[in-house]
Amino acid sequence: MAPKSVETAPEVLTGDPKHAARATRSAGRRMRSRLLDVASRLFKERGLAGTSISDIAAAADAFPSQITYYFRTKEALFVEAACRDVLYVARAAEQAALQAKTPRDYTGALVEAVTATDSVSFFTEALTLTRRRPDLAPLVERTIERLHGEGLRAYAGQIERHGWKSLRDPDASSRRFWALAIGVTVEGHAMGRSAAEMGAEMLSVLGDQATTRTEDNNLRLRLVGDREVSNSDSTDGEAS
Amino acid sequence: MAPKSVETAPEVLTGDPKHAARATRSAGRRMRSRLLDVASRLFKERGLAGTSISDIAAAADAFPSQITYYFRTKEALFVEAACRDVLYVARAAEQAALQAKTPRDYTGALVEAVTATDSVSFFTEALTLTRRRPDLAPLVERTIERLHGEGLRAYAGQIERHGWKSLRDPDASSRRFWALAIGVTVEGHAMGRSAAEMGAEMLSVLGDQATTRTEDNNLRLRLVGDREVSNSDSTDGEAS
Repeated sequence: MAPKSVETAPEVLTGDPKHAARATRSAGRRMRSRLLDVASRLFKERGLAGTSISDIAAAADAFPSQITYYFRTKEALFVEAACRDVLYVARAAEQAALQAKTPRDYTGALVEAVTATDSVSFFTEALTLTRRRPDLAPLVERTIERLHGEGLRAYAGQIERHGWKSLRDPDASSRRFWALAIGVTVEGHAMGRSAAEMGAEMLSVLGDQATTRTEDNNLRLRLVGDREVSNSDSTDGEAS
Repeated sequence: MAPKSVETAPEVLTGDPKHAARATRSAGRRMRSRLLDVASRLFKERGLAGTSISDIAAAADAFPSQITYYFRTKEALFVEAACRDVLYVARAAEQAALQAKTPRDYTGALVEAVTATDSVSFFTEALTLTRRRPDLAPLVERTIERLHGEGLRAYAGQIERHGWKSLRDPDASSRRFWALAIGVTVEGHAMGRSAAEMGAEMLSVLGDQATTRTEDNNLRLRLVGDREVSNSDSTDGEAS
């Protein structure tokens, strides 16, 4: 059963059926997006068990039936909100890192952006949940592939632009970055570490990712040669 | 209230009070250990939510009251079983890696041993649980410190014995190993990867950890010099 949208777009009242359908779709997208925003905030504050569908509906000024219409279950909403959230943070991290002048600044900016929020932890809870809920796995799989694919594309672009040399296969660098972000966050939260401490730990275990050509001449580094980079994952914009 | 031990040690019947007390302590230790063994197996098969105290008691041929006597809550038993389990696997991995003739074989043996079991995943669930149960955090913190400390000690010993050169700070190498083990496992389970696939992914993101001196001369590698290694964490044997 389709829900009544709380937010009725004024265009629906104009009488043109095509216009009305478009306006309804657009109002539906806005409601869906608002529910995801509110759910992300509440889930990050209180966890899955501490947040109910009615809490989210109340905070989003919506009906509980709208949540089940758009997302079916609380768990499915949790996973979708977490996947969307980690992709936002990944994009914000790449934006922040664009200004970096050296490989070390680049890694530092990425790490700072990723550890400053609770998004990796939220996403990790979604990954853990998915293990016993295989019906929710496909979205999580696509999200991991996009994190790796977009990370690789951004890193390869940065290396190319600055003429840096990657110390390892750039594809493995992106996958290593995210696996370490998850591992360091899981450990860090259990250890009661602050965001700054997790950032420092992540920098320490990541080590240097790339070097400038000048450093290269000075430091006798082993180089992974420039590679053709495939970025087939990066064109799909659906979950952004 | 002290539980009645299902397994009454025959020595208790000898009449010597000191002997009897020692025998009771020893029977208690055996029961505790059996409960941890059974709990580990069931939790790994069915997860925390899918396993009850009565299930564990029935499988261990014990009374539910013995579980609450030794561990208080199911969550505390879960965390203790997971910590013990990951330390066993870490030790088994170091044993398996002792035979390695090259740095690459050494890393390969560690990775194979760690990804062949469900223990890292079990431990990760314990870490996630601890985040909202700070009362259970101290054991988890000690376990992470021991994983890092014992990993460092074993790695430093191996490097020393073979005359290998570590490519990075050995301390960071041990911490990186465990953070990646957690990250790759969490991602791998959500992606439905097999143990072999997780092992391959882990080797790929770990990269080379050390080099032999011959390779060193051939490959132009940047070296982290030999360091004084502190292993103050490695003497405590309580949870083994």
